[in-house]
Parts: sequence; C-alpha cells; structure tokens
Amino acid sequence: MARRSMKEEILGAGVDLFLERGFNAAGVKDITDRAGVPKGSFYNHFESKEALAAVALERYGDSRRLSDLANQEIPPVERIRRHFEFLRDELPDFARGCMFGNFSAEIVDHSEPLRLRVKGSFDQWSEMLADAIAEGQEAGEIRASLDPRPTAHYLTNAWEGTLLQARADKTGDAFAIFFTITFDALLT
Amino acid sequence: MARRSMKEEILGAGVDLFLERGFNAAGVKDITDRAGVPKGSFYNHFESKEALAAVALERYGDSRRLSDLANQEIPPVERIRRHFEFLRDELPDFARGCMFGNFSAEIVDHSEPLRLRVKGSFDQWSEMLADAIAEGQEAGEIRASLDPRPTAHYLTNAWEGTLLQARADKTGDAFAIFFTITFDALLT
Repeated sequence: MARRSMKEEILGAGVDLFLERGFNAAGVKDITDRAGVPKGSFYNHFESKEALAAVALERYGDSRRLSDLANQEIPPVERIRRHFEFLRDELPDFARGCMFGNFSAEIVDHSEPLRLRVKGSFDQWSEMLADAIAEGQEAGEIRASLDPRPTAHYLTNAWEGTLLQARADKTGDAFAIFFTITFDALLT
Repeated sequence: MARRSMKEEILGAGVDLFLERGFNAAGVKDITDRAGVPKGSFYNHFESKEALAAVALERYGDSRRLSDLANQEIPPVERIRRHFEFLRDELPDFARGCMFGNFSAEIVDHSEPLRLRVKGSFDQWSEMLADAIAEGQEAGEIRASLDPRPTAHYLTNAWEGTLLQARADKTGDAFAIFFTITFDALLT
C-alpha cells in the first residue's frame, strides 16, 4: 500500500490534535511531530495553522456521517438515536471533544474565516437533523408540537454540552442522560 | 477608595481572559498586562497559571448567583428562567464563554486538579437546579415524569452548547431556542 502523502499525514495529525488538545494547544511543531514529518514541510502544504484548521474542519465534518440521518431505510427516531450513538462510540475515553465545539470555545471569536466555517458545520448538522425530526413527526414517532429546526439546534447544543460534561466527569453518565432525556422526555 | 490589591487585580484579569480566550491562549504575560502589573509579580501571588485558574474558577462560580435558584420567594419555573436570563444577559456580545465549559474543552484532559474543580462546579450547579426542578414538580409547574437530577444535567449541558453555538453565530438565536425548548417543550 502506498504511503499517505505528506499533506495527508499532516492533515490527519491536525485532526487528531485539534480534537485532543483544541486549537491553541496544538502547535505546528506538535502537528508535524505527530505526522512524523519535518516542521518545515508544514508550510509547503498549508499557509498557516488556521488554513490547516479549515481543511481539518471539513474532513472532520465529513466523518460525522450526516448522510446517515437521511437514510430512509431506518425509522426516523431510530436513525437519530443511531447517529448520536455513532458520535458517542467514537469517544471511548471521554478525552476528545467535538471539533465544532472545541473551535467554538477557542477560536471563533478570533478568526472570522474559521467562525464562518464552524457556523456552517453546525448549520448543516442541524438541517439534516431537523429533516429527520420532521420525518419522525410525519411518521407519528415524534411529538407534533415541536418545531423541527429549533429542536434540532437544541439537540446539537445539548450534545456539545454533553461532551464537555463527559470530559470533566470521565464517565459515560452525561451520555446516558442525553439519550434518556432526548428520547424519553423531549422528542417522544 | 483603596486600590485593589495586586493579587486581586491579577485574579480579575485572569477571570476576564480565561472567559475571553480560554485557558491556553491566556498567557501569564497577557494576564499581568491586563492587570497592569509587572509580569514578575505574578509568581509572588500564584504558583502557576493552573493555580490562578483554580481560584478564578471559584470566583467565577460565586458570580453565577446559584443561591438565587433556592430563592423561595419566586415560583420555581420563573426562578429557573431568571437564572438562565441572568447568565445570558452577561454575554451581550456573544464573545465570552462559560469558564466551566471553556476549561472542559481545553484543560480538563491535561490537569487532574482543574478537572476535579470543573466537575465540582458542574455538579454544584446541577444540584441547585435539580432542587428547583423538584420544587417545580411539587408545585405542579413542571412535568412530574421528569427525573430532576438528570434533567438538571441535561439543561446545564444544553446551556453550555448554547453558548458555543452563540459564539459561532454571533446572534441571540441559540439563546431564544434554549428558552423556547426548555420552557415550552421540556419542562412544562
């Protein structure tokens, strides 16, 4: 198998370190060390850490499997549940956040291009989730009184806070609470 | 009026910068510059930035006015609403997070003493909120089927995510959604 290109190695290391440490604590040297490439090679591929972060955010967004939220073969509530289970199961050690959330906490106030990308990521996620909620209402699975779009935003916000809580707790309690309240009290 | 002590100036600047920039991007020199004191004076008062952060977290927690959640003179749901309105109204420019959330995103994986303090802050907040929810149930204002403790955790998590979203959006939309879903769909 061909070795991944140096650019790809740097991008992969950037995604990992932005998730583990956030934006500010992941230095260019940390990223090239993790990638196993010389520090100088970074700037052959990316103009700045901010430029890498923009591509890393896109890569991370693609890995969220948002299209699963539109999979008509699975009933809507089950589909929404599996989506959040997938996101939870990526985080077995409660030590990595969500890149959208990490960047919101650290960098959106200080980089307008990254802010717009983070906002776009949140919006895309909420849109897909809102569509699944609306389908669940049509199927009689979700309370008809809920407005799908704000409900979707609320759920993504509750999820982001759940990740923060799980990192502080180092237990799965916050995830268990997220699933119980979301599926037994809010949606149905 | 007597000038605040140097230690107090440093602490105040630390609280501000941890809220504005988070833990990692607020350097000791940034903090002493903001406080208007020489950098060297920092270590006369605090052993490290981590030690300052621990005190700043406590100071910030005190400023959350959690005791208002136990004010028996105000009906429970109104009390809970005013609590979150107070937290919202502190953030007119959508550019400062919550210190608990900022530290969860950035530092709890890397400092066990700070992790335990952040966890303690979240737990104390949720406890006070759970008590108010339970009172609301006794008063017939809040759905009896909700378990107060997990519901309180869910609300604080939704709030933390709401702050992240508001920072990415730079609008009050996420706050409006928080209030609508929390008070019109989840609690009542």
